[in-house]
Amino acid sequence: MQKMSRLFIPKLVIPKDSAPKHIEALSRSQRLMNELGLVKGAGNGFFHFMPIAQRSLDKLCNLVDECVLKTGSYKMTMPILTPTELWQQSGRLHGDIEEFFIVKDRHDKKYLLSPTHEEAITSILATTAPISYKQLPLRLYQLGPKFRDELKARFGLVRAKEFLMKDLYSFDRSDKEAEESYKIITSSYAELFKKLQLPFEKVEACTGIMGGKCSQEYQIVCPVGEDRLLRCKQCHYAFNVDLAEGDAKCCLKCHSSDLEELKGIEVAHTFLLGDRYTKPFNATYLDSDGKPKALVMGCYGLGVSRVLAASLEVLSSDNGLVWPSLLAPYDICVIGPKDGSNEQELGDVIEKEICQKITEIYGCNDVVHDDRKYLTIGKRLWEAKRMGYPLIIVAGGKRAGDTPTLELLVKNHHHELHVDTVLTEIHKYKDHKTALRKRWH
Amino acid sequence: MQKMSRLFIPKLVIPKDSAPKHIEALSRSQRLMNELGLVKGAGNGFFHFMPIAQRSLDKLCNLVDECVLKTGSYKMTMPILTPTELWQQSGRLHGDIEEFFIVKDRHDKKYLLSPTHEEAITSILATTAPISYKQLPLRLYQLGPKFRDELKARFGLVRAKEFLMKDLYSFDRSDKEAEESYKIITSSYAELFKKLQLPFEKVEACTGIMGGKCSQEYQIVCPVGEDRLLRCKQCHYAFNVDLAEGDAKCCLKCHSSDLEELKGIEVAHTFLLGDRYTKPFNATYLDSDGKPKALVMGCYGLGVSRVLAASLEVLSSDNGLVWPSLLAPYDICVIGPKDGSNEQELGDVIEKEICQKITEIYGCNDVVHDDRKYLTIGKRLWEAKRMGYPLIIVAGGKRAGDTPTLELLVKNHHHELHVDTVLTEIHKYKDHKTALRKRWH
Repeated sequence: MQKMSRLFIPKLVIPKDSAPKHIEALSRSQRLMNELGLVKGAGNGFFHFMPIAQRSLDKLCNLVDECVLKTGSYKMTMPILTPTELWQQSGRLHGDIEEFFIVKDRHDKKYLLSPTHEEAITSILATTAPISYKQLPLRLYQLGPKFRDELKARFGLVRAKEFLMKDLYSFDRSDKEAEESYKIITSSYAELFKKLQLPFEKVEACTGIMGGKCSQEYQIVCPVGEDRLLRCKQCHYAFNVDLAEGDAKCCLKCHSSDLEELKGIEVAHTFLLGDRYTKPFNATYLDSDGKPKALVMGCYGLGVSRVLAASLEVLSSDNGLVWPSLLAPYDICVIGPKDGSNEQELGDVIEKEICQKITEIYGCNDVVHDDRKYLTIGKRLWEAKRMGYPLIIVAGGKRAGDTPTLELLVKNHHHELHVDTVLTEIHKYKDHKTALRKRWH
Repeated sequence: MQKMSRLFIPKLVIPKDSAPKHIEALSRSQRLMNELGLVKGAGNGFFHFMPIAQRSLDKLCNLVDECVLKTGSYKMTMPILTPTELWQQSGRLHGDIEEFFIVKDRHDKKYLLSPTHEEAITSILATTAPISYKQLPLRLYQLGPKFRDELKARFGLVRAKEFLMKDLYSFDRSDKEAEESYKIITSSYAELFKKLQLPFEKVEACTGIMGGKCSQEYQIVCPVGEDRLLRCKQCHYAFNVDLAEGDAKCCLKCHSSDLEELKGIEVAHTFLLGDRYTKPFNATYLDSDGKPKALVMGCYGLGVSRVLAASLEVLSSDNGLVWPSLLAPYDICVIGPKDGSNEQELGDVIEKEICQKITEIYGCNDVVHDDRKYLTIGKRLWEAKRMGYPLIIVAGGKRAGDTPTLELLVKNHHHELHVDTVLTEIHKYKDHKTALRKRWH
């Protein structure tokens, strides 16, 4: 059980008479994460993840790993610095490169702070011993920082210049087999968003600078989203408005004009790339006839830190955070009586008892004890509610007749309960979380 | 159980008549990791971690997390890009900055690809609401990529330009309390290296560019080490040769001249920094008398990817890798009969049986099935031995009288055993590993 007194939570202190600045760029998740000390700005578009947010981010990374490993993908890591020559070879250094950070080493050799790794992964395959068709499909992914020199960084982690991304690359023998990889991997993304209990849309999108045959985005539907989506009310097909031609917009699939417009935060973008990269890099496999053929490629980006922000954006209220169950930084927060209060004697006893029993049920993880007994219960409870812990338990030192009681808060509903009933609720929550975690279709 | 056929292992194919180049810069770990497809060069001083090495690296990161959490430290993440102003403020931008990678954004603002984060963490503390003495000690760490534009990158992961580091920072109320933090955290490093079964020395070192009051290095004793160490045969005190004055070297503690010289790979460096950074940044806490005082700081770097390389450097033979038990990419490798061989019928049956029973004991992790049945047993066994899996099981289809047998290789010793005996050995290995993992003193 961790101690709140030891946790570093650098809350933002806004002087009462200060005028808020940049108000137009502030989203709900950004404001709350800043005020509650989860992130701290480190320059325009850069953020420190403080300990509480780090816990949620680590949980999300583990979930992503689990999700992706089930698709038969293997984890690896490519350097952040990629020599610019590779981007010359793919032709992507000739386009709109203002968003790239480029750095020189002491010998004037240039590197990109990679925003994505198609060039790097393809060049690995092109420069190893020939891959046999027997080794295909090949699915490789990594999870690490990416960089983009955004003209307008905004909404905190939603659009940052340095962000955490999971990028996955599939290599297959044919278009048909590549489509099979695409289906398996994109399904796993849909599973992930369901597990996170988020409202999402899978939409047809532009391939843009990435190139390739077709692409789809996963969008978290949300008012501050920067993407405009159109969803057909007849056939439910959805697409990015960038794909619509002219003013008389109609469904790209059934041609109905009965469309609704939504706003979304793009959290994942997947592409069937064909030989867009494997051909210029000469990344081939040896087919069963002994001849080398170009690998058929797919790529699948998932903005991990952006998913965290989008979750909080769409689930939270103006007054406090609400987390996807599997991403809550702690599941349970325990608050005891204030030092020197009348209820302290009884409260201390019951606080100790409940802490011990929770540890037996929950282990040392996922429970935080707000042991700052120099603060009032009210102050600590207010903070805990704003932080959105799924279960908040107050050992205030009250009685119902002969037996002491605890206060249990679930989704901001207060319950006055005996210890045993609280423990039953904790068991229930644990089972609920386990079921949610296990449920991969 | 993972399938070897699906794993991407880009083995280095060296043409037989090619002259080896850069032979002087090749260390054992580098050569083996390259040849066996664990890492792949991505330019001078940059490396791709391929799936097998990634598994070991992930295991090491988890061990480091466990080790550090026990010191009461909390995890966080700071951006890789740090504004150069912060390094101006600490004075470190005026020194020898050739090893820094510096990048400009589209507005000509400069950032460092941080080689370490003293400036960033101190500035976080300096710009938050006042920290109370009640919140101290504060111990924060992160684990992520770091950058150094080395003049001579060499020995693979031992001295790379982009590498994985865990950096920890402690903040205390007084020198005395800072020394207590220092003691707790450095002890945990010693524990980590013991758990990894590595020969290490804790040595007195120069504070160098970092500054502060005193510093110590953790050195893995190893012939290719680039650091020269002196250890006193009388009092066992050890120190970096850089600290010795003049030619007549003697022990810095007991003044004996009975010294032995060792070579070491520096894997960790810890510093008591005092107010070296907190003063220029005005990072203070409110003491019990209500007055602000400068925080007393310590910092603790651990080269995670370097620990992996140093482990392999010191434990392996010329012919194959040997892993610390807790870092082996897989604990068990199972090899079945070759397709079309005489032994295949019996071999297939017993291979299936052993795979199933191992899964019951070991779960799906940490076991790899070399299912490339188009290769001979000999070829696959040779590869498995070079890769250094702790247990290798061959279901070759042999019999001892009426009952089929398996071949079990432990540390390159062959045993011909019945299934039940093999399963007993697997149980034993699992217990050994669990004990090793749990043993924190």
